[in-house]
Amino acid sequence: GILERLDAGEIVIGDGGFVFALEKRGYVKAGPWTPEATVEHPEAVRQLHREFLRAGSNVLQTFTFYASEDKLENRGNYVAEKISCQKVNEAACDIAREVANEGDALVAGGVSQTPSYLSCKDKAEVKAAFRKQLDVFMKKNVDFLIAEYFEHVEEAVWAVEVLKESGKPVAATMCIGPEGDMHGVPPGQCAVQLVNAGASIVGVNCHFDPDTSLETVRLMKEGLQAAKLKAHLMSQPLAFHTPDCGKQGFIDLPEFPFGLEPRIVTRWDIQKYARKAYDLGVRYIGGCCGFEPYHVRAIAEELAPERGFLPEASEKHGSWGNSLSMHTKPWVRARARKEYWENLKPASGRPYCPSMAKPDGWGVTKGARELMQQKEATSEQQLKELFQKQKF
Amino acid sequence: GILERLDAGEIVIGDGGFVFALEKRGYVKAGPWTPEATVEHPEAVRQLHREFLRAGSNVLQTFTFYASEDKLENRGNYVAEKISCQKVNEAACDIAREVANEGDALVAGGVSQTPSYLSCKDKAEVKAAFRKQLDVFMKKNVDFLIAEYFEHVEEAVWAVEVLKESGKPVAATMCIGPEGDMHGVPPGQCAVQLVNAGASIVGVNCHFDPDTSLETVRLMKEGLQAAKLKAHLMSQPLAFHTPDCGKQGFIDLPEFPFGLEPRIVTRWDIQKYARKAYDLGVRYIGGCCGFEPYHVRAIAEELAPERGFLPEASEKHGSWGNSLSMHTKPWVRARARKEYWENLKPASGRPYCPSMAKPDGWGVTKGARELMQQKEATSEQQLKELFQKQKF
Amino acid sequence: GILERLDAGEIVIGDGGFVFALEKRGYVKAGPWTPEATVEHPEAVRQLHREFLRAGSNVLQTFTFYASEDKLENRGNYVAEKISCQKVNEAACDIAREVANEGDALVAGGVSQTPSYLSCKDKAEVKAAFRKQLDVFMKKNVDFLIAEYFEHVEEAVWAVEVLKESGKPVAATMCIGPEGDMHGVPPGQCAVQLVNAGASIVGVNCHFDPDTSLETVRLMKEGLQAAKLKAHLMSQPLAFHTPDCGKQGFIDLPEFPFGLEPRIVTRWDIQKYARKAYDLGVRYIGGCCGFEPYHVRAIAEELAPERGFLPEASEKHGSWGNSLSMHTKPWVRARARKEYWENLKPASGRPYCPSMAKPDGWGVTKGARELMQQKEATSEQQLKELFQKQKF
Amino acid sequence: GILERLDAGEIVIGDGGFVFALEKRGYVKAGPWTPEATVEHPEAVRQLHREFLRAGSNVLQTFTFYASEDKLENRGNYVAEKISCQKVNEAACDIAREVANEGDALVAGGVSQTPSYLSCKDKAEVKAAFRKQLDVFMKKNVDFLIAEYFEHVEEAVWAVEVLKESGKPVAATMCIGPEGDMHGVPPGQCAVQLVNAGASIVGVNCHFDPDTSLETVRLMKEGLQAAKLKAHLMSQPLAFHTPDCGKQGFIDLPEFPFGLEPRIVTRWDIQKYARKAYDLGVRYIGGCCGFEPYHVRAIAEELAPERGFLPEASEKHGSWGNSLSMHTKPWVRARARKEYWENLKPASGRPYCPSMAKPDGWGVTKGARELMQQKEATSEQQLKELFQKQKF
Repeated sequence: GILERLDAGEIVIGDGGFVFALEKRGYVKAGPWTPEATVEHPEAVRQLHREFLRAGSNVLQTFTFYASEDKLENRGNYVAEKISCQKVNEAACDIAREVANEGDALVAGGVSQTPSYLSCKDKAEVKAAFRKQLDVFMKKNVDFLIAEYFEHVEEAVWAVEVLKESGKPVAATMCIGPEGDMHGVPPGQCAVQLVNAGASIVGVNCHFDPDTSLETVRLMKEGLQAAKLKAHLMSQPLAFHTPDCGKQGFIDLPEFPFGLEPRIVTRWDIQKYARKAYDLGVRYIGGCCGFEPYHVRAIAEELAPERGFLPEASEKHGSWGNSLSMHTKPWVRARARKEYWENLKPASGRPYCPSMAKPDGWGVTKGARELMQQKEATSEQQLKELFQKQKF
Repeated sequence: GILERLDAGEIVIGDGGFVFALEKRGYVKAGPWTPEATVEHPEAVRQLHREFLRAGSNVLQTFTFYASEDKLENRGNYVAEKISCQKVNEAACDIAREVANEGDALVAGGVSQTPSYLSCKDKAEVKAAFRKQLDVFMKKNVDFLIAEYFEHVEEAVWAVEVLKESGKPVAATMCIGPEGDMHGVPPGQCAVQLVNAGASIVGVNCHFDPDTSLETVRLMKEGLQAAKLKAHLMSQPLAFHTPDCGKQGFIDLPEFPFGLEPRIVTRWDIQKYARKAYDLGVRYIGGCCGFEPYHVRAIAEELAPERGFLPEASEKHGSWGNSLSMHTKPWVRARARKEYWENLKPASGRPYCPSMAKPDGWGVTKGARELMQQKEATSEQQLKELFQKQKF
Repeated sequence: GILERLDAGEIVIGDGGFVFALEKRGYVKAGPWTPEATVEHPEAVRQLHREFLRAGSNVLQTFTFYASEDKLENRGNYVAEKISCQKVNEAACDIAREVANEGDALVAGGVSQTPSYLSCKDKAEVKAAFRKQLDVFMKKNVDFLIAEYFEHVEEAVWAVEVLKESGKPVAATMCIGPEGDMHGVPPGQCAVQLVNAGASIVGVNCHFDPDTSLETVRLMKEGLQAAKLKAHLMSQPLAFHTPDCGKQGFIDLPEFPFGLEPRIVTRWDIQKYARKAYDLGVRYIGGCCGFEPYHVRAIAEELAPERGFLPEASEKHGSWGNSLSMHTKPWVRARARKEYWENLKPASGRPYCPSMAKPDGWGVTKGARELMQQKEATSEQQLKELFQKQKF
Repeated sequence: GILERLDAGEIVIGDGGFVFALEKRGYVKAGPWTPEATVEHPEAVRQLHREFLRAGSNVLQTFTFYASEDKLENRGNYVAEKISCQKVNEAACDIAREVANEGDALVAGGVSQTPSYLSCKDKAEVKAAFRKQLDVFMKKNVDFLIAEYFEHVEEAVWAVEVLKESGKPVAATMCIGPEGDMHGVPPGQCAVQLVNAGASIVGVNCHFDPDTSLETVRLMKEGLQAAKLKAHLMSQPLAFHTPDCGKQGFIDLPEFPFGLEPRIVTRWDIQKYARKAYDLGVRYIGGCCGFEPYHVRAIAEELAPERGFLPEASEKHGSWGNSLSMHTKPWVRARARKEYWENLKPASGRPYCPSMAKPDGWGVTKGARELMQQKEATSEQQLKELFQKQKF
């Protein structure tokens, strides 16, 4: 089990970002970001799981991101034939388990934030949505559960409370930065609330780059220590450089989601991240949007000394570029060493582009912004009214 | 057949870069860049073919890059169990055909430059290597043939001559820039030689970004016009921005091959490329290293008005970002339009990095550099001698 | 007098950075940064004063930066004929007064931090150094006094105490950022101490760019408000962009002092600064290192609506580029408007350079760094010992 | 005399850019760029001459740029009291001579391109304008003459022909890049025409950065060699990095003239330029717009080994930063060496700005653009008509 591994001091390597990877492969639509591919194109989902497994992932998360009923209904009507929420979740479990059995990985069932919460539905309704997904996870007997991608600790706590009903271990990660959740609850306090709600593993995922995410985890760790609470730490950040983003992370960057390419991190950036996470005491180390299989492999390679082994996919990778040592050009051979890649400041090839961007949404009046940050408006009507009243 | 389509004025969309895409997925080793995955992990190769097909590719190239016997022997000894050249090539053909049959794509058998040529083997020997691959292509009955990734027009001509023996249509692309091949033969003259040798389609692939590649194709077109020769034009450039590279392209950039991320082109860059290629008269439009399925889809979407249809994968893509039009945040919804993405200058998130790099190899003495450019030294011994003599 | 003007709500425009401007003109040596030019080349100092007066300065500061006896002795021995501290200070007063009389500017006598303090001399000794300069200012009857460029509030307080003995108004500015002084005293507390010591005007000068400096002034303002103290606010920042610098400001940037060119702010940046300073309630607005006469003119032009007049040098300047409205090229004429210059993101023409730098001094062990920050080591011997012990 | 010095193999150091330096000091208006300051504020002009002399200039050019009668009339009507062309030119000569006598510098009288030529006046009229200025130069007995800042070789030849009537040595520089003059005459041919017209010294000034300018001089040198002509070579480039500019140089860059700060070259860039110019055989080495006294000093310091002495202003400058060797901080002391400054890639501190810009004027139709390039339209009426006809 996950807790046995972590309690024994093992490093657990997570997987990468399914919606972004499958968007590039042609199976997920940016905007809705829903996972109907589990039913429509199981072979594509299966192959991506396999690549992460091969890259070193110890956990395969069911591809159930945004697979709550309200979300699929709300946004999913572009799907040609209507596919039921249950079918999507069940297929996700089956695929993950099939691939997990090809290695010795664990399967984690995941729930994420819901439109119901954002449109101010009450606790019972939101919890009912999570419970519907949990029913599938129990039927399919996943190994443990993850509540991830929450911007409001209140909703995350509700999710953890539902998942805990299962008796299985629960991990909880929020997509927040050092400034805290959208109601202004600081990371340390979020962590405390999540552990008190029953999470055994807490941390962050998505929305911020590795450095910023680890800073948030550090604050969570401090909060837990101050409250004399114990929990394992987890981080699954973006694979994009986002030093310039504001409180809500990369969504507000002008490049989101179709111009993020120049921000993609290298495998060497990931090795630095993995080391830094390890040094901070994080033992569940994975990634989120932007993480491709080779990024996960980079975690596994960086921590190979501690773990004692390399992942399967390292058969096709020389540590620190050493596969270049046979190149015919001496200056390419000269790149076959750690110092080279560690110190390289890679050029963008884009002299007409800046290095940082101002997040959008700055022109919004403070009142409107806060309103939207607290409970994101979901209906067109509401937004039109906000627009008219407040001159976005 | 390919020529029927092109002769009828159709646009033919190529596929993307297998070695780079499969390297990130964990199945190809950077450095050797050989395609033993066709035997070791056919499911991974099959899935990538499928994604390109779904994205709009009309041609599936057999994954036989660097699959000549000398190359596989020379570099392939890291492969656990020795896999025969023939097996790799046959498996490549089978997989490509299997997926092509899922749509109406053509299968093209491909050969590329050989170590034998670079180490100064004679014409007969080099031709024998191509013929060995051709035998497989004939047995497997591919639809047409491509000679690609040649730095020296002499070797490319030899390849075309061999491939023409088959009676099948032959396309030929060189990995050169506007300065011409490594012996200094300008692009126009290269094109003329290739057509005279029997190629029906000529152009460039790899080594340079879309803009630079189209400039090279333009020079080829002019050369053909001056020689009153007719041929179809083809381009399959990098999906990396490389305005700063020298005569030998991106290999010499300090970021090659493990730090190229900030150079990756966006889907919008590709739409511009597709339009520009079309306007230049190029009708076989595809990509090489760095091209992922979503890049190929961008070609198909840009040229949908001319072709009259969208590719299958566009089910999961809103043209010019229109899938964002339902986003809860007004500033994200504001990105759901062509002008936004067309004009965006994406930030790198890397303020400590430059925007351009000086290609390596500049410190090399002119004599040594020319020597290597003409015939790349392949043996360690030769290179050591060059080093000692010429103080690289 | 200065206080009459400020009390009446007038805007007082300071001057710019003498040591940097005269270094570029060939009269000040970078490193020592001492003002012996007042004796050696009075015409050069006079001309620079005149240019600032013409640009709109209401105050001409005597060019007595680092003109304490200990500093001149310590570093000034490169001056061919030894020039006495008193002569330098007297000449500075005479030149400033001569030019001030050409308009209606005030003359301010200035003292700055001393090597004596940094090498741990006691209060009496440090105060004696300030008193020596004050004697000259009293003899020459300057209009008011400025204690500027202090990194430690303790020394700044000592300086204010000495200057207050004169009965003349005293302004005090520190070269600190939002993190506070080198002993960690936060800006708000620094301001309180300075006012309590007798300063009527407080603020910051040097070391940080306009934005960072105004942030520090804001913290000072808050500190004063919390303590229910009243004082006029003053800011004289760098004319360099330094978003990337650490606690000790631009000294630690790798570009200091001979590679700062790409960081120089434009006149439009200064107009934004002047407006922002005004909006914050700052009424003594000037500049420090990097500020040239045209930067001071930009302050005067931005605040012309409030002040009701333009400076003399605006005869040679069209507001917001309107002097381009007669250009023969239409695209240059199109630059003759506010929106153009306000929104321009000027390119550096340096594609091989980054946009930000890591400050130096990071490799230094914490202990050694703190030691140096608290009391900067001055003797070579001390530094050598630090080096040997702590491996800088 | 100038020719004696050059014939003897001496290096002659020119001066810097008066209009840009005096614009920043408040005495020249950007747009018109006319030199009425010689009459209005002679002390400011005198001081700048002195600074260049002190920095190592061997030639002081009279500040007579754009001081032809037609230019002063055309643009100069913003000057409060009308100042006659003759007075401006005479004052310029007097000031230059006065300062030249303080050292052993030569005085050069300069003429530059005229609005008359651009508005299609005939040869006689244009020559008359030059002759008017020449009369003053002869009366004031300058040491030699310079025809500079010509975009059309035809007009430059006319200027040289007039100046040659004086019997004094004539230098001629054009503000062109490697693409040649505005009628498309290549640099080599321009040089040949200028020498044939009587110029003893030829080269380029203004419009392009040092590297581009030296490339143009190289082409001039080749043209002269091919024509078996002899002449001394001269270069006076911008002190701005402009790798991104088009045929007409920095005028078309969006940053011209009020946002060029991030492009300003460092003293170290100038040392590289001086060395490169020397190695190319250029012996008259100076600067144009952007060159401040410290840039000229950098030329003199770089070539001190060849010349055997340092300029006076080097008393206030340590070679390659060695004045930092006494700094209290070890990491600043570490900057007191050549390797440091030679290799520094200075950061801009502007992460929201790009590194290169697209020159303006691209939207202009080719016909209109050529028209304007050939003979720049000068009357508002003409331009309005062009606008209406051609939709700029």
